[in-house]
Amino acid sequence: MSRIVYVNGEFVPEDEAKVSVFDRGFLFADGVYEVTSVLGGKLIDFPGHAARLRRSLAELEMDSPIEDDDLLAVHRELVARNGIEDGLVYLQITRGAADRDFAFPEGATPTIVLFTQAKPGLADSAASRAGIKVISIPDIRWGRRDIKTVQLLYPSMGKMAAKKAGADDAWMVEDGKVTEGTSNNAYIVKGRKIITRHLGTEILHGITRAAVRRLAREAQMEVEERSFTIDEAKEADEAFVTSASSFVMPVVEIDGAELGGGTPGPVAQRLREIYLEESRKAAI
Amino acid sequence: MSRIVYVNGEFVPEDEAKVSVFDRGFLFADGVYEVTSVLGGKLIDFPGHAARLRRSLAELEMDSPIEDDDLLAVHRELVARNGIEDGLVYLQITRGAADRDFAFPEGATPTIVLFTQAKPGLADSAASRAGIKVISIPDIRWGRRDIKTVQLLYPSMGKMAAKKAGADDAWMVEDGKVTEGTSNNAYIVKGRKIITRHLGTEILHGITRAAVRRLAREAQMEVEERSFTIDEAKEADEAFVTSASSFVMPVVEIDGAELGGGTPGPVAQRLREIYLEESRKAAI
Repeated sequence: MSRIVYVNGEFVPEDEAKVSVFDRGFLFADGVYEVTSVLGGKLIDFPGHAARLRRSLAELEMDSPIEDDDLLAVHRELVARNGIEDGLVYLQITRGAADRDFAFPEGATPTIVLFTQAKPGLADSAASRAGIKVISIPDIRWGRRDIKTVQLLYPSMGKMAAKKAGADDAWMVEDGKVTEGTSNNAYIVKGRKIITRHLGTEILHGITRAAVRRLAREAQMEVEERSFTIDEAKEADEAFVTSASSFVMPVVEIDGAELGGGTPGPVAQRLREIYLEESRKAAI
Repeated sequence: MSRIVYVNGEFVPEDEAKVSVFDRGFLFADGVYEVTSVLGGKLIDFPGHAARLRRSLAELEMDSPIEDDDLLAVHRELVARNGIEDGLVYLQITRGAADRDFAFPEGATPTIVLFTQAKPGLADSAASRAGIKVISIPDIRWGRRDIKTVQLLYPSMGKMAAKKAGADDAWMVEDGKVTEGTSNNAYIVKGRKIITRHLGTEILHGITRAAVRRLAREAQMEVEERSFTIDEAKEADEAFVTSASSFVMPVVEIDGAELGGGTPGPVAQRLREIYLEESRKAAI
């Protein structure tokens, strides 16, 4: 199956979807991205992703090649052209192509690329029913993880370390405290209190994190924003992660220690239900 | 002027030099690179760069799409086709193109790209005669700077911060000590002792650093490998940086404090002469 991909204003077959070798996204990882879920052919929390994209671009003094309305139209066009019922839309903007120089180029046109990934049954994955296993690894990423850049080599290495250890993902630890998962925010539940790390430059400001935090409070669940250790997590009642593509995903094992008898906990399951219900309602 | 660029086995005009938007170099910064200088049409320390490339690939469990002999042939072919007398050959290898997934793809073919940059008078630049000014910035890069990856966004930001401050480059500081420049190793000179940071995961293992260290010792200069602070650097007799493309570059100002009356020091100048002389002799 050949997808239709959007590259700098054109819809092209995926085999023809290319960027210059001089693109700063390729040479310097000088680019930012967003991933928006699609459920029932509609986009989940597009405004949240568009707003975070603007913030990432601003933090890097990078121009945007597109307005939000047009960006939404491209998302919808790709979903339609590729017949995506459940899946993802990936968006990347880079500073553009210019002869290689560490200094930002003047007058370069930003590069914009969007493509889809079909994920049938995304909202009812086997992983979400069984829960996932995580290991802990040191967090050695750069210091501005609040900017959603394509500097994703270490998270990739973390995912591979998890796979080699027979787990599904890795939680990263800095100064003794969990920062986040390789591509998601991390949570533990104690009593009925949901604990997740406070925002800062150390973690991504998850769009799903913000939604889950709001929905949890609306459901009268207490949310405490503070960092926690792996030892505290291992002794928690439950754990879970959130991301745009995994929604609320139960964690049932941390560094080999089972949580809740190795099955998804009630708080994570309930939050997942609420989040999916609300997200489907608000999808556009 | 249109360069001839090498992409995955083919020599193509630079306008046609493209990679897939699914290339992991573009999506995950999952790639490594080398820059080799060209003086008088010949390559400076090609074996050193080839050896470091192998190490970078091995550290990332990344396959190589090319043998050293063939890599040398491609370098020479590009130098010839583009008529490079003085300049650079840039080389990048990525894990290749695959549908987006944090986990390393199985069976993907690595991407290889090489291009040249003409730099007439590279060995006698105005900067090398005047010396450069540096500022200090926090080092917030990831923890494996010994692997020469394309995760270069922060060094780019550092170069821009230097330009905005009226300087030429930035020295990065971690735990109170200088790690290195944005794209070079950093040195100070006290008495006739040359001081440069010891090797580790905190800095790039510079090919030029290794050569300069050897040549300095052959010239009876003492080289001490230890970290130093910005305050110590400001009070040094001289300072300089080394890299494949700047060779030995005198530093005459650090955070606004002039060194050696604001002119290049004798040790840096002498090392530059020795390095260029030896490099030209050994060039291939």
